[in-house]
Amino acid sequence: MFFINNQFVLRFEFMSIFALHNTEHTIYMKIALAQLNYHIGNFDGNVEKIIAQIRMAQAKQVDIICFGELAVCGYPPRDFLEFKDFIHLAQQGIERIRMASDNIAVVVGAPTINPVPEGKDLYNSAYFIADQEILYVQHKALLPTYDIFDEYRYFEPAHQFDLVSYRGKKIALTVCEDIWNIGNENPLYTTCPLDIHMQHQPDLVINISASPFSHGHAQERIEMLKANVNRYKVPFFYVNHVGAQTEVIFDGGSLVMSADGIIHDEMPYFIEKCTIYDLDLVNQTKTDNEQTKDKTSLTHDALVLGVRDYFGKLNFTKCVLGLSGGIDSAVTTVIAAQALGPDNVRVLLMPSEFSSDHSIDDSILLAENLNIQYDIVPIDDVYNQYRSTLHPLFGDLPFNIAEENLQARIRGMLLMAVSNKFGHIVLNTSNKSEAAVGYGTLYGDMCGGLSVIGDLYKMEVYDLARYMNRNTEVIPEHIITKPPSAELRPNQKDSDSLPDYQDLDQILKQYIEQQKGPDEIIALGYDPKLVQRILRLVNINEFKRYQTAPSLRVSSKAFGMGRRMPIVGKYLS
Amino acid sequence: MFFINNQFVLRFEFMSIFALHNTEHTIYMKIALAQLNYHIGNFDGNVEKIIAQIRMAQAKQVDIICFGELAVCGYPPRDFLEFKDFIHLAQQGIERIRMASDNIAVVVGAPTINPVPEGKDLYNSAYFIADQEILYVQHKALLPTYDIFDEYRYFEPAHQFDLVSYRGKKIALTVCEDIWNIGNENPLYTTCPLDIHMQHQPDLVINISASPFSHGHAQERIEMLKANVNRYKVPFFYVNHVGAQTEVIFDGGSLVMSADGIIHDEMPYFIEKCTIYDLDLVNQTKTDNEQTKDKTSLTHDALVLGVRDYFGKLNFTKCVLGLSGGIDSAVTTVIAAQALGPDNVRVLLMPSEFSSDHSIDDSILLAENLNIQYDIVPIDDVYNQYRSTLHPLFGDLPFNIAEENLQARIRGMLLMAVSNKFGHIVLNTSNKSEAAVGYGTLYGDMCGGLSVIGDLYKMEVYDLARYMNRNTEVIPEHIITKPPSAELRPNQKDSDSLPDYQDLDQILKQYIEQQKGPDEIIALGYDPKLVQRILRLVNINEFKRYQTAPSLRVSSKAFGMGRRMPIVGKYLS
Repeated sequence: MFFINNQFVLRFEFMSIFALHNTEHTIYMKIALAQLNYHIGNFDGNVEKIIAQIRMAQAKQVDIICFGELAVCGYPPRDFLEFKDFIHLAQQGIERIRMASDNIAVVVGAPTINPVPEGKDLYNSAYFIADQEILYVQHKALLPTYDIFDEYRYFEPAHQFDLVSYRGKKIALTVCEDIWNIGNENPLYTTCPLDIHMQHQPDLVINISASPFSHGHAQERIEMLKANVNRYKVPFFYVNHVGAQTEVIFDGGSLVMSADGIIHDEMPYFIEKCTIYDLDLVNQTKTDNEQTKDKTSLTHDALVLGVRDYFGKLNFTKCVLGLSGGIDSAVTTVIAAQALGPDNVRVLLMPSEFSSDHSIDDSILLAENLNIQYDIVPIDDVYNQYRSTLHPLFGDLPFNIAEENLQARIRGMLLMAVSNKFGHIVLNTSNKSEAAVGYGTLYGDMCGGLSVIGDLYKMEVYDLARYMNRNTEVIPEHIITKPPSAELRPNQKDSDSLPDYQDLDQILKQYIEQQKGPDEIIALGYDPKLVQRILRLVNINEFKRYQTAPSLRVSSKAFGMGRRMPIVGKYLS
Repeated sequence: MFFINNQFVLRFEFMSIFALHNTEHTIYMKIALAQLNYHIGNFDGNVEKIIAQIRMAQAKQVDIICFGELAVCGYPPRDFLEFKDFIHLAQQGIERIRMASDNIAVVVGAPTINPVPEGKDLYNSAYFIADQEILYVQHKALLPTYDIFDEYRYFEPAHQFDLVSYRGKKIALTVCEDIWNIGNENPLYTTCPLDIHMQHQPDLVINISASPFSHGHAQERIEMLKANVNRYKVPFFYVNHVGAQTEVIFDGGSLVMSADGIIHDEMPYFIEKCTIYDLDLVNQTKTDNEQTKDKTSLTHDALVLGVRDYFGKLNFTKCVLGLSGGIDSAVTTVIAAQALGPDNVRVLLMPSEFSSDHSIDDSILLAENLNIQYDIVPIDDVYNQYRSTLHPLFGDLPFNIAEENLQARIRGMLLMAVSNKFGHIVLNTSNKSEAAVGYGTLYGDMCGGLSVIGDLYKMEVYDLARYMNRNTEVIPEHIITKPPSAELRPNQKDSDSLPDYQDLDQILKQYIEQQKGPDEIIALGYDPKLVQRILRLVNINEFKRYQTAPSLRVSSKAFGMGRRMPIVGKYLS
């Protein structure tokens, strides 16, 4: 399907303008990438944002402006896609964009209805709209169905691949995963859309993506793009989403790469931006314009954006959390203050008879450093009252996990009471190491609307704390240096019941991120009994994680939608 | 791929035996269907159970014995499938079954490694093993990826379809969904495995399934099988799993259908059984042997099995739950007593100042009817202590949802304390109507390890209560007839804040099960404002449902893994 004739006429007029300052090239093309923060199901908001960028681009004589995958409805829309009404609203959005596309081409993602009864009801499509006409719709062929992705649940894969000709250029349109089948050792798919596109020799490739952040993934994206360019020798324009949708954080980092595989531009991370590129200049790039990427710094920015968008998109402003004096709640509080502003963060200090003095002192110091509201709410009276109420049932049975959990749950209830009374949203402060092995109390310290650092292993929480203190001591040093403790019984330390966090984290990473089995992990040199104990703890605690808040995803394998485990199983348990 | 030669020799010896009492038919065949309760990841348990049935079948000169889809590892194994170790253990299971298959053919499901790098790493396969040889492995082609199913997450679809010839019969092997593309108005798939198989004229079709219960689904299965037989005119042997895997309940109801589309046998529901069929007799069937199916009775049996298997497979024996005097906790308690035995059910009656006298009286009567342990644990003292502790923060702000939720959460904490002290598992008592609109307290009445009636709308809970009382009054009549109330403030009734349950349930069903949009539901004659209000409540309460226990699935669309909704969205909210 080629659309050359009309566009050639229009193009000719444009050329006479640009010929003034671009005499060497007969066909000049300006392409804009709009890296925007969409909101799932917020059709008015998304479409208005898209049209505002189209208007700016029209004013700057841009030829083609590109938006993200499923930009009209936001990503991932999940089972909203199963509602005809939702698809109808997305199509109305495309119609509004079509009306706004005079004298410019717009590449934008939206779901399309599959016209035949066989197969899934929808396609995940890239629309090429120009001069108030839908010139072409390229459906996505490679449908990610792993980790957090469920695309084959909704979409039929594309079987037709045509180029779009526009203003003298032949363009291959691709959607996200469609370019991720090159250079993989173990490709997930048996087809390769660009191999088909290349039979008609496109001048450039546009890829509209919704590729979420995980530390390390930005580098993988660059390598994947380079592998494509090495194979096909054409320039690539890759535009990503930015912004968080509950736990999934899109980092931006959109890319423009020359036909020689040189990075012409890597757009900023975690920031909305629209940049205009000159196709000729792209192909003249001599050296990579690549940003340095620091894992901890990127993770920090991802979490701040994650918290900010959770609140902003749900129309919440204020949060409340418990400050225990430990590192997890300290780091969570700093992120909250950065995301929402100190005025919107309230903390409760909830000491018990088992709390150490320094827990309160350290917490007060942190709250004062951040200039946030804090209240001290001792839990002893409520705790003692529970014990009296339960005495007819418990008699003189010894103190055990029941009394430990009572304390954690009283704290959770006090936070929820403040939430219900004043409208603050409770932030959860659990880390990934303890979520993994079940070292937390369901309905107690595991409560909250959003888990902020639930995808950070304990050692990564320390890294983040040190990063936060890189210029000035925000988190009191003692919080970072003291041994971790839940303080639920006298002189308790995490190390009483858990292995050293350095070993624990490494074994967990092998099991969770690397999906290695017990024999493979033991072969790395870890104590077999320790490995078996840890893997068992992970598996028998699936029931706890099932009931916890969504956790901002910063790794390649976070607990939640991306890791689906049976509760009633008998494997390594 | 045909395997005739060796089998023909063996077959000949068999025929001489059977010729004695089966003179009219030159080739006689006995096929057994083993409808068993597997356990995910419990390879030893599953394989031993399978081999025990093989031994029984060998003793009865069965020719072919059939087990369920992925029987070796249990279904659904979810992301355990991503562990090489897990696949290795499944293959070891197949090896043990192979060794046990002397003088019999075994059809059994297990995952198979995809030998080529392209595509997904695994196949979902039906193994045809006979006389200690793996004669053929038929992979599944149609991979359900909707509702609770995620098969394309793990499996590559089959592209090769061959018959197996065994003891003179040509057999088409299919796995579950492979036969579900006939007679659909809107087929999910573009291919049809049996159309290919039929080119080689099989004598019979074997389908090994893992098809979960939902009320109405048993009838759909029969209709689907009839549509297949009408098209292909061959007898079908369809074997299903029985038993629950967390929230997913397999009901059995395996089917044998003649080439004329007559039901030769419908195996029992919710019971393990192995039945031997004579192929010739199957084809001589004249009238349908179909069971009557009553929705409420099937639902009841499903829930009892769901609770029993959750406890049995996790090695738990005892449960605890709160008896409020309302119908939800009453019905849940009856199911628990039937599933676990009265000695293993303990209830707490936790009155507050807002509880009515009849709540306690009715609850005691129910506990006595069921002969279960009950304790009365008033919550007023703990509640008043919370209010004192929170007074410095709350001042004289008026009573609101914070104080209501405090009561619900105190009750949740008392149940959890009993759980932690004595090892009882807390059963959740929420129904689907309240879960839908968020009429429940997170970490309060929404707590528990398993939601028993969370997939039953309020009116269906009443149906179940009346069913339980069909012979004798187990649930005191007053619990069924009084107006529902949460009793969290003076004289509260559900109808103060919720629409009439009859309307609510109907609108919810249209939205949740039928996936109708607001305009479609309003067009059915419901008040537009009411519809919008209810749909909004469903959507803004996704965050609550995200954090609740798995809920035994008895409808075609339950909350949980089968309904994946964004939390941070702006659609109908």
